[in-house]
Amino acid sequence: MNGELMAAEMAEQPDVLARVTARAPADAEAVRAVVPRPLAGVVFLARGSSDNAAVFGRYLAELRAGRPAGLAAPSLYTRYHATVDWRGYLVVALSQSGATPEIISTCQAVRAGGAVVLGITNEPDSPLADAVDVLLSTDAGPERAVPATKTVTAQLALLVTVTSALRAGAADATPGAAGETADAVSDAPDGGTLDGLRGAVAGVLGDPGPVERLADRWRGLDRLVVAGRGLAYAAALETALKVKETTGILAEGISTADLLHGPIAAVYAGAPVLLVDGGGPADTDLDELRALLASRRAHVASLPVPPGLPEAVHVIAAITRGQQLSYELARARHVNPDAPAHLSKVTATT
Amino acid sequence: MNGELMAAEMAEQPDVLARVTARAPADAEAVRAVVPRPLAGVVFLARGSSDNAAVFGRYLAELRAGRPAGLAAPSLYTRYHATVDWRGYLVVALSQSGATPEIISTCQAVRAGGAVVLGITNEPDSPLADAVDVLLSTDAGPERAVPATKTVTAQLALLVTVTSALRAGAADATPGAAGETADAVSDAPDGGTLDGLRGAVAGVLGDPGPVERLADRWRGLDRLVVAGRGLAYAAALETALKVKETTGILAEGISTADLLHGPIAAVYAGAPVLLVDGGGPADTDLDELRALLASRRAHVASLPVPPGLPEAVHVIAAITRGQQLSYELARARHVNPDAPAHLSKVTATT
Repeated sequence: MNGELMAAEMAEQPDVLARVTARAPADAEAVRAVVPRPLAGVVFLARGSSDNAAVFGRYLAELRAGRPAGLAAPSLYTRYHATVDWRGYLVVALSQSGATPEIISTCQAVRAGGAVVLGITNEPDSPLADAVDVLLSTDAGPERAVPATKTVTAQLALLVTVTSALRAGAADATPGAAGETADAVSDAPDGGTLDGLRGAVAGVLGDPGPVERLADRWRGLDRLVVAGRGLAYAAALETALKVKETTGILAEGISTADLLHGPIAAVYAGAPVLLVDGGGPADTDLDELRALLASRRAHVASLPVPPGLPEAVHVIAAITRGQQLSYELARARHVNPDAPAHLSKVTATT
Repeated sequence: MNGELMAAEMAEQPDVLARVTARAPADAEAVRAVVPRPLAGVVFLARGSSDNAAVFGRYLAELRAGRPAGLAAPSLYTRYHATVDWRGYLVVALSQSGATPEIISTCQAVRAGGAVVLGITNEPDSPLADAVDVLLSTDAGPERAVPATKTVTAQLALLVTVTSALRAGAADATPGAAGETADAVSDAPDGGTLDGLRGAVAGVLGDPGPVERLADRWRGLDRLVVAGRGLAYAAALETALKVKETTGILAEGISTADLLHGPIAAVYAGAPVLLVDGGGPADTDLDELRALLASRRAHVASLPVPPGLPEAVHVIAAITRGQQLSYELARARHVNPDAPAHLSKVTATT
């Protein structure tokens, strides 16, 4: 037992993502049936890897719904017992297990405050089912390796569907606030941006050479900065988390803009930087950063993804690359990525 | 020139904060005059240290306004050119210089979308003035050291005032959604939570012994995890950023809940952990984490702040402690904290 579970679950992703793609029309319809109109805003609620999927959803939701989106702060409900008027809001709660206590109790609190709550889980019979208005399943099959892989990319694919459904409705509710906006991410009709996803992810999984070489070069790291912007910011955060979980390397995901701003000083102290591009309009910052880092002779690498993909598909493929790098780094360091020390599968934060 | 600027600006904080406290009634009135009713939500817009102040504001705003709050993603406007309906929203833009291009252009975009925009800056004659509906000044005097100190704590103090003004209005607009909520943070009337702030910060500044000893013990660090939750999460993020900026140590600010969830595996690889308490209801997680880390024999320290302060004041004092630690760490490492290599004062991200 040395990474077989994680490898097997990563390898299931093309099939899992094909199923999510096939269900997209029905899932979008389920979202349209409950989304509040007029829509005041969209808020994502999650922890861990699901919280990185939430970052991806937050960008897409604001672009497509044409209303502000954001991330929930669960401690406001579990610790401060805040009383908040959530009327008009759609809250999207993501939990692989559907059993994280603070996610359940925060769902209950925002729903009591008037929010419509959409749950996304890999366990449709979990407690999350009773705390939401509608539940969508990632349907990825049992996940046994501690580092989540197939459930994360399935969450992102589902969020492409969910946010597509917001766009269609938003065009009716707020004339002039859709259209051009949504096209910045995709010209395709609702759900269409999932086209090509299965092939892109299968292509990455079938070509591990680039990250095997990178993992060999970086096997001795004790820290790493992972940078991206826009939709790719989510891929940077998730890759950093996955590297942490599988290897113990102190990897930090960061926005390219923040890295250009202040904390970059830390880079000069010798931390290598992994750049994650999104194949979209936010990549201009990466070019600037790459030039700056080169002039400082920092150790820099990129997560290679084939060009020409729609941005959302590109980012999901980049996350698969990041999983692959984490797996290979763990193997190169003789760590078992299936069950990193002291990590348990179900989040118990309350 | 070896830290004199940073030390002098840190030392000015009691006077700066006393001025912010004295202006609180007028500033609150200026906020009440523009806040949209009904209020759809509150969003904070910032980068760098100001973004950490924004996290603090985000928690207080949701508690006090009784409506959801969040953080803006500037790249949606500067890179994706999103068209979003911001009607009903209050956007609070924080920029020390008032000259960061992406903050200005995002203010213009959300205002064009219907948001009321409140600016908070230390340079009231900056371009930010023309991009907002109302401008409040931190009035902290010129800040010449690269690591921002007095402007950050002044921002937090101003945010206590701003969010108090939201509460008073919210009680009228959404009956039953205020009261108990706000009391979780403070029993005091609007602005009253700033009482005791000057003395608390002066007390921290006058007693550097605890962090001098910690800096001596930790002078050789190359990485650090800084953890807090609730309002203190902002202090954890800001302390991590300040340590990075002044020393080059790869410090990562993290929510206690996230540290309990997954990335904690990295801790076992030897990274020391700095715990930041808030003197409030979210500290229960810190107790759990402290016990866990002790059982793993991790290197753990706390940012000492006197007990008995209102939570918001406690957190501002903790940020001052974090500045003091950053300063002392830089001195112990023979780095000049006034002008860390390759950092410039005005953010140029676009």
